[in-house]
Amino acid sequence: MAWTLDPDRCFSPVPSVRARARELYEGVRGLPLVSPHGHVPPELLADESARFSDPASLFIVPDHYVFRMLYSQGVPLESLGVPTLDGTPVEKDPRQIWRTFCAHFHLFDGTPTGLWLKSELIELFGLDVRPSPETADATYDHLAACLAEDSFRPRALFERFGIEVLATTDAATDDLAPHAAAQRDGLPVVPTFRPDALLATADEAWPDRLRLLEERTGMAVEDLGSFLEAVRRRRQHFRQLGATASDHGVADTFVRSLERSEAEVLFDKALKRTIDQDEATRLASHLLFEMAGMAAEDGLVMQLHVGSFRNHNQRVFQRFGADKGADMPVSVDWTRGLHALLNAFGQDERFRLILFTLDESTYGRELAPLAGHYPAVRLGAPWWFFDSLLGFQRYLDAVVETAGVYNLAGFVDDTRAFPSIPARHDVWRRAVSSWLAEKVEWGVIDEESAPRMARWLAYEAPKDAYRLG
Amino acid sequence: MAWTLDPDRCFSPVPSVRARARELYEGVRGLPLVSPHGHVPPELLADESARFSDPASLFIVPDHYVFRMLYSQGVPLESLGVPTLDGTPVEKDPRQIWRTFCAHFHLFDGTPTGLWLKSELIELFGLDVRPSPETADATYDHLAACLAEDSFRPRALFERFGIEVLATTDAATDDLAPHAAAQRDGLPVVPTFRPDALLATADEAWPDRLRLLEERTGMAVEDLGSFLEAVRRRRQHFRQLGATASDHGVADTFVRSLERSEAEVLFDKALKRTIDQDEATRLASHLLFEMAGMAAEDGLVMQLHVGSFRNHNQRVFQRFGADKGADMPVSVDWTRGLHALLNAFGQDERFRLILFTLDESTYGRELAPLAGHYPAVRLGAPWWFFDSLLGFQRYLDAVVETAGVYNLAGFVDDTRAFPSIPARHDVWRRAVSSWLAEKVEWGVIDEESAPRMARWLAYEAPKDAYRLG
Amino acid sequence: MAWTLDPDRCFSPVPSVRARARELYEGVRGLPLVSPHGHVPPELLADESARFSDPASLFIVPDHYVFRMLYSQGVPLESLGVPTLDGTPVEKDPRQIWRTFCAHFHLFDGTPTGLWLKSELIELFGLDVRPSPETADATYDHLAACLAEDSFRPRALFERFGIEVLATTDAATDDLAPHAAAQRDGLPVVPTFRPDALLATADEAWPDRLRLLEERTGMAVEDLGSFLEAVRRRRQHFRQLGATASDHGVADTFVRSLERSEAEVLFDKALKRTIDQDEATRLASHLLFEMAGMAAEDGLVMQLHVGSFRNHNQRVFQRFGADKGADMPVSVDWTRGLHALLNAFGQDERFRLILFTLDESTYGRELAPLAGHYPAVRLGAPWWFFDSLLGFQRYLDAVVETAGVYNLAGFVDDTRAFPSIPARHDVWRRAVSSWLAEKVEWGVIDEESAPRMARWLAYEAPKDAYRLG
Repeated sequence: MAWTLDPDRCFSPVPSVRARARELYEGVRGLPLVSPHGHVPPELLADESARFSDPASLFIVPDHYVFRMLYSQGVPLESLGVPTLDGTPVEKDPRQIWRTFCAHFHLFDGTPTGLWLKSELIELFGLDVRPSPETADATYDHLAACLAEDSFRPRALFERFGIEVLATTDAATDDLAPHAAAQRDGLPVVPTFRPDALLATADEAWPDRLRLLEERTGMAVEDLGSFLEAVRRRRQHFRQLGATASDHGVADTFVRSLERSEAEVLFDKALKRTIDQDEATRLASHLLFEMAGMAAEDGLVMQLHVGSFRNHNQRVFQRFGADKGADMPVSVDWTRGLHALLNAFGQDERFRLILFTLDESTYGRELAPLAGHYPAVRLGAPWWFFDSLLGFQRYLDAVVETAGVYNLAGFVDDTRAFPSIPARHDVWRRAVSSWLAEKVEWGVIDEESAPRMARWLAYEAPKDAYRLG
Repeated sequence: MAWTLDPDRCFSPVPSVRARARELYEGVRGLPLVSPHGHVPPELLADESARFSDPASLFIVPDHYVFRMLYSQGVPLESLGVPTLDGTPVEKDPRQIWRTFCAHFHLFDGTPTGLWLKSELIELFGLDVRPSPETADATYDHLAACLAEDSFRPRALFERFGIEVLATTDAATDDLAPHAAAQRDGLPVVPTFRPDALLATADEAWPDRLRLLEERTGMAVEDLGSFLEAVRRRRQHFRQLGATASDHGVADTFVRSLERSEAEVLFDKALKRTIDQDEATRLASHLLFEMAGMAAEDGLVMQLHVGSFRNHNQRVFQRFGADKGADMPVSVDWTRGLHALLNAFGQDERFRLILFTLDESTYGRELAPLAGHYPAVRLGAPWWFFDSLLGFQRYLDAVVETAGVYNLAGFVDDTRAFPSIPARHDVWRRAVSSWLAEKVEWGVIDEESAPRMARWLAYEAPKDAYRLG
Repeated sequence: MAWTLDPDRCFSPVPSVRARARELYEGVRGLPLVSPHGHVPPELLADESARFSDPASLFIVPDHYVFRMLYSQGVPLESLGVPTLDGTPVEKDPRQIWRTFCAHFHLFDGTPTGLWLKSELIELFGLDVRPSPETADATYDHLAACLAEDSFRPRALFERFGIEVLATTDAATDDLAPHAAAQRDGLPVVPTFRPDALLATADEAWPDRLRLLEERTGMAVEDLGSFLEAVRRRRQHFRQLGATASDHGVADTFVRSLERSEAEVLFDKALKRTIDQDEATRLASHLLFEMAGMAAEDGLVMQLHVGSFRNHNQRVFQRFGADKGADMPVSVDWTRGLHALLNAFGQDERFRLILFTLDESTYGRELAPLAGHYPAVRLGAPWWFFDSLLGFQRYLDAVVETAGVYNLAGFVDDTRAFPSIPARHDVWRRAVSSWLAEKVEWGVIDEESAPRMARWLAYEAPKDAYRLG
């Protein structure tokens, strides 16, 4: 049976809606891709000759969206080649890993990962059979042959994808050499300032990070003031390399400024390594508040990703490290949590705050009302588990009535899976087209407004929200 | 391009559903409007000759649903003529305010406010072009000319709208003269008893309110007992003017009776102005419990509006005051919060409690189970941000399976925007018709039951729930 | 007007979806019923000659789904024949109870209870008029005549329903004689180990339960160790009678192991009846953790039903007892609550945990991510208020994109209303067929995958999840 992509995928099957969705989609499908937030390794694009080594290393080993699903059904991560920190041996043969993946491909039925993979495999790589135990070897060979071609180098794909700008996510102490290299060759690849590790003062590795900060900035960090000055310099350096945004991942929404004297005492404890976890949490909240103040000065757009309980499965964390599909969402309280921050900066026109949640119950209850009032706030795209057709529908249903579309920041692909970028944007563009078409057919959006709204959501919103170009 | 209203707006585009929705809607569209909860200023209707002064003062200046959306996109409230408390000058020219509004009209695309405005402007005022920078002056002139006509006086509109009864919302100490005046002329305008300000004993203005209470009742308030007696008399006075309900806006659901002695001590502290905020919160909760007790005696239906963090943006509050689009919802806990109250009064047949939430996650989890058990409880209409097509769908989807439709209180327009009343009821009636049609077509509601359910939700439920007529 | 069942009920009215839904449904409608969790009294099936006595005793008196709805509209439970604990007299005439029910049958319009009743009355009992005041006596007579026939004995219905296996829910100290009797006659009726009452050490009745435990096991319980050993023996006894699962109903998700010494001290207090409620709650959480440990040893699948505030209406509880429609859901926190438990057993392949929630906001936020990661976790069917067409849609919409379908445990009917079993499974099978058809038509599930997914959800998933056969 031939494996084909439905040309009307992600469009409502209601005939009048589908017809209008197709029309709206035609108006946005070919627009350049704007990717203001994601996790593509910049090294991929730094070097013209970089290549993807094999199908398993491309599709499976680095992608926790993929391997966590197999793990949930009892497939050991070791058998999928996920590298271990503790020396436990793992499968090294990419063909064997691919076979295991193919034997479990049905697990992805009905999931966005399944849809992205299908799109990539068919549209990008030209497969015409579905991965299965029977097709594992043939599909492996086909993909491996593709990857050996020049046209599948990351830079070739970058061009083929029509990416107008791509932002990576980078530690505050990263040297950004890959970005400089890519930019020298004309690639629009910019960094994003993510200082999380530098604000986690109780971490064992924090002193090393601090030393690296001193090295990067050429200044000594002796107290809170000099630390903040060093951070400010790094932000400036990121901006020189084209960064327009910072990114902050925190467990909860409460961002609170401490008295300066208290913050200084806590920071001194951090320097002396006598800070405990509770103090470090208080200090991190204060430092995030300081970041907002810097953002109001330097104009870097502040992204908050809130509500993930990281590394919930401690055994997976100990053996494999972070970002292994074991992060679990928790409920959050944006209204109370951001009260202080928004009262300080929420109407400051230099300040821009983009909010991302894993708690969908806050879409309509908190996020849309906040975005529909505070000039500084834009709502980030549906995040992570909700980067999906139904996730998009729920998001638009929940927020647009209250916040309109012009307080939304559009789409971010947020991916480390480089070849999935076009498929992800395409699902968003299709979903937006169908959603708008549906509302026009329900008689609640003017027919003549819909194309402008589609273009905004598909292309203009992220440029505007992230102050790109 | 002519600006027209879709005659099938708010109906599903699935052909079989739409056909049935039209039929059901025909059965309810012309029923009189029952408006048991809202914020229309009674003064508008007290005087036969009252008029709306100009389009900006009618549509923009008093309507926080409208101006908060422009504010969210950086339009200063001052430029929209919103009056300030601190003397900051504001735009006074209504034409200029209207122009600013027209320049941002696209912000309302996809929002219920946009749909209400469109309905009003086309159906009520006969506009045929969409507000935009180009049409700002012409539409202003058209609307201003309408407002100069006798047929656009509030009382003329009241009649034209087919309002069977309209309840306003009034402080416990209001003198209700406008209601008396309107009633003398035969208008069915009744007050609603809202004692919130009188229960906020730590407020700076509380002693003034207390003096006014003494004045209105002609009795001295010297302790908790005499305070409650004075409140009881005011309830009686409201009932004499046709009130059938009280209304209570509180931050959280926890309503708890204190020991009488503790309550007396706290009230004495309030009288002596030594009460602190925590004590005042405890006392307010107790006083609300007392209100429930009075409701079980005098039969005033008790409405609870819970879960709004008022005046979240302190700068807006300081400059412009309350109700300026800066209230933000928070999550609530109805199950635990109302435990004491419902155990005291939940099966008392004289007691009726109507619940309103801004936390949609409680619809199915808490509110529908409570309403589907306690005889006293009815579920209020989707409130505020959820007074919308999708809000109605989510509400009906979440509550009817558990509570049925006969535990729902129907619709309230809850508006201070008088001319929007018919448009709001119409969206509800259309949404209900489409929703019921959909369920009939899904085969889960009997065809012959649907018209009765539509009539109940559109017209009978609020009369029954609010003990009107 | 004839009362008929729509053959396309629970199918989307979108024509292309409906056509495909019919097809998928044809593939699963006739599969045997697997009922791994419910509350059918095993006595019904122990004796070949057992009969249902009359329509009221079958449909109304024991079913809190039914009588709570009438109660919510002011119908006293006494008038519905619900037995009292305090000697208050109740209606005894089944015909009179049936009349009261018929007079309020419209309350069930739009509810799953209404749909189940309709299906049973038409399909099973051959009614062709809708219950109403006018039809009350005729329908009563018709149903009573049916119940007098041999073919309406519980065992006859059991066979007619095509039940492959039925699990009941039984106290840890139940003697399981009915199961043994049913099994001797070849009926696949197995018990489920529910030790809740035995873990509630502060209950007044706990010492009696403990004595019964000693009696059943023939061993003395003198301390925590011997208690756990006795429990272990009971689990073993349940397993010998075919049990494959335990079931645990708890108010919140937090399951935490105490230090052994602390647990022993608390258990001693329980034995001495000096334990207070807080201590008992701590101890119960520890004992549940111990149950998980036993499950990892003996392989009984652990079901957790979390988040019901039991007996919210104390007057109903005092007069009528537990399970009278007065339990109210509360929000829960699975991510933090199960952290310890899942870190201890979440990747243990002998351990299987099936989770049920009344807080739908946790479907996508917590439950699907947990099930999409931990090998031990499966998601239970939509529970109680959400055992409904829309409940199924919301569940599948919220969980499948993240967890896929193969981490779901399929359907459980969870009912004490024996004759409703086929109707409940049928709604699930129809809803699943329509949902899958919709996703195929949206182009996000492969056409060739859908039948396998339908069969899994309708039949295979519960057998797999509950380790049945």
